Amino acid sequence: MKRLLRTLNGEAVWPPPVWLMRQAGRYLPEYRAVRAGVKDFVALCTTPELAAEVTLQPIRRYGFDAAILFSDILILPWALGHGLEFKEGEGPVLPRLRDEAGVAALDPARVAERVAPVMETVRLVRAGLLSEGFADTALIGFAGAPFTVACYMVEGGGSKDFAAVRGMAYAQPALFQRLMDVLTEATIEYLSAQVAAGAEVLMLFDSWAGVLSPSLFRTHCVAPATRIVAALRQRHPGVPIIGFPRLAGMMAREYATTGVNGIGVDTGSDIASVAALVPPHIAVQGNLDPLALVAGGAAMANETRPILDAMRGRPFIFNLGHGIVPQTPPDHVAALLELVRAG
Amino acid sequence: MKRLLRTLNGEAVWPPPVWLMRQAGRYLPEYRAVRAGVKDFVALCTTPELAAEVTLQPIRRYGFDAAILFSDILILPWALGHGLEFKEGEGPVLPRLRDEAGVAALDPARVAERVAPVMETVRLVRAGLLSEGFADTALIGFAGAPFTVACYMVEGGGSKDFAAVRGMAYAQPALFQRLMDVLTEATIEYLSAQVAAGAEVLMLFDSWAGVLSPSLFRTHCVAPATRIVAALRQRHPGVPIIGFPRLAGMMAREYATTGVNGIGVDTGSDIASVAALVPPHIAVQGNLDPLALVAGGAAMANETRPILDAMRGRPFIFNLGHGIVPQTPPDHVAALLELVRAG
Repeated sequence: MKRLLRTLNGEAVWPPPVWLMRQAGRYLPEYRAVRAGVKDFVALCTTPELAAEVTLQPIRRYGFDAAILFSDILILPWALGHGLEFKEGEGPVLPRLRDEAGVAALDPARVAERVAPVMETVRLVRAGLLSEGFADTALIGFAGAPFTVACYMVEGGGSKDFAAVRGMAYAQPALFQRLMDVLTEATIEYLSAQVAAGAEVLMLFDSWAGVLSPSLFRTHCVAPATRIVAALRQRHPGVPIIGFPRLAGMMAREYATTGVNGIGVDTGSDIASVAALVPPHIAVQGNLDPLALVAGGAAMANETRPILDAMRGRPFIFNLGHGIVPQTPPDHVAALLELVRAG
Repeated sequence: MKRLLRTLNGEAVWPPPVWLMRQAGRYLPEYRAVRAGVKDFVALCTTPELAAEVTLQPIRRYGFDAAILFSDILILPWALGHGLEFKEGEGPVLPRLRDEAGVAALDPARVAERVAPVMETVRLVRAGLLSEGFADTALIGFAGAPFTVACYMVEGGGSKDFAAVRGMAYAQPALFQRLMDVLTEATIEYLSAQVAAGAEVLMLFDSWAGVLSPSLFRTHCVAPATRIVAALRQRHPGVPIIGFPRLAGMMAREYATTGVNGIGVDTGSDIASVAALVPPHIAVQGNLDPLALVAGGAAMANETRPILDAMRGRPFIFNLGHGIVPQTPPDHVAALLELVRAG
């Protein structure tokens, strides 16, 4: 069994499997070359040959233990018929969903057709990993968690404080729950289709879970993740799921009840403390600061060592605590892999 | 002894003392009236009669257990000679400190003179509380914690990810430490002067502590707070200090070793879990979501109740988990106070 899958089955594989969030991205010249040839980011995500190519690039360069589908968490709302544009230097821009009509306009029936290119990407990557000899590299499919996707839809993009989405959750709880329900069901179908196309592991990114109060965290992060995990477990019993409730802090303990096989840890958390909060069979994934990777050298080693030392002997996946940043020197990634593989 | 001071001395006062972060602010029409008459935000902070007036406004309206000096955490770097401008709708804009010359240009010798109006504000507020009959309202002085102030100085304002300041901490540790040392020493003098002018409690706002990796958190949040608390304790033994390491999650446990008498809790944390991490004599302060206060009614009550229930029987100060937002209806604040005072 592949090293990542063994880890997610509860085995303390050592040295640990390693991959990096956003490992296919702008820090790689070969990625920038592909990106330069397409008109926009959505086009890159929905052109299977190109998306598969950029997914495989970091595997060829570094031999990571996992390839993660090149896509974006906002492809699902886009497939539901919600608009999506990526403006240079501004991030995603979406129409602001603020009322019943906005929820009613979402069309789950069209999702399968619109995400068909994503499924083709998954098939191409899986075949590419085999044909290029990466027999131990597992393919991760993913989606944004419903709350994080709702954040972008309600705010109309990123936000400093996510006041509109939190305001809606408090002041219009029934409306917000309907939006969450639509997203939860669509996420189940979307992830299930990725497994059918060849994804071996699934990851649920709840990047903004940390802005929720404890009660909202239970309702809009833990509860939908529980539904999603249960539905996928029933359809695809052998496929492990990693949840990443970013900035959840101690709420990670409650997140562990969702049934996930692995839990992602952000840069600000002491990974040993998070590991102590969750049952020992759940793999912990994280959490080097991407800025330590940019710095490289002693700073990177000093941040990496305590993570490895704390995680030896438990199911653990080495990763960053947040996505790799564009200014990362590719050499530093190679040096990091040496450190991790020395255990 | 005033209710807030008793609580910070380790007594489980009930109903708990209550005040709200940014309680003097744009949600109040009387504040907006004063603000409209001054040219900029720095002018408001450095005109003692006006700053004292807006500090007292929410006390007159609601009778909070604490008045907090109306000022800004960036007044200290401004007093050190670093530029500061508040642009409408953009937040603070500062020159970007990125090198040795930037640190060398800071001039601790000029601080006392430049912050003299702040000390006059403290004196006016203290006298105003007495003369207006708020005998049980304690006056809180405050400063930004060195790391959070450094964030704004290095980034040149707010930031989505604070990549520059984290990058400097990793790649130029000696330079960054010098900046932190200057800020730490200046903070001690600044807070000490506030006590001399009449502040009865001090609060240290480390709003961005949560972006630090655990090792950087120890070096740049816990260590400077420990130095600041020790120095102030020696000079002003009876003056309690509240630390607010925002988004620290489980790192709150380590923050409790700084010697603070109280610890602030942000909206995302389960306050009972944080309380369980820190020694029982340390007061816990927080943590209603400001957006629940905007919503009011059942949503606000449903968020408030579990906080009160969890904190009964331990030293606790009711507050928000983040500053009150401008769109807050003043009536909702009155309704919140009724809930809290019913215990």
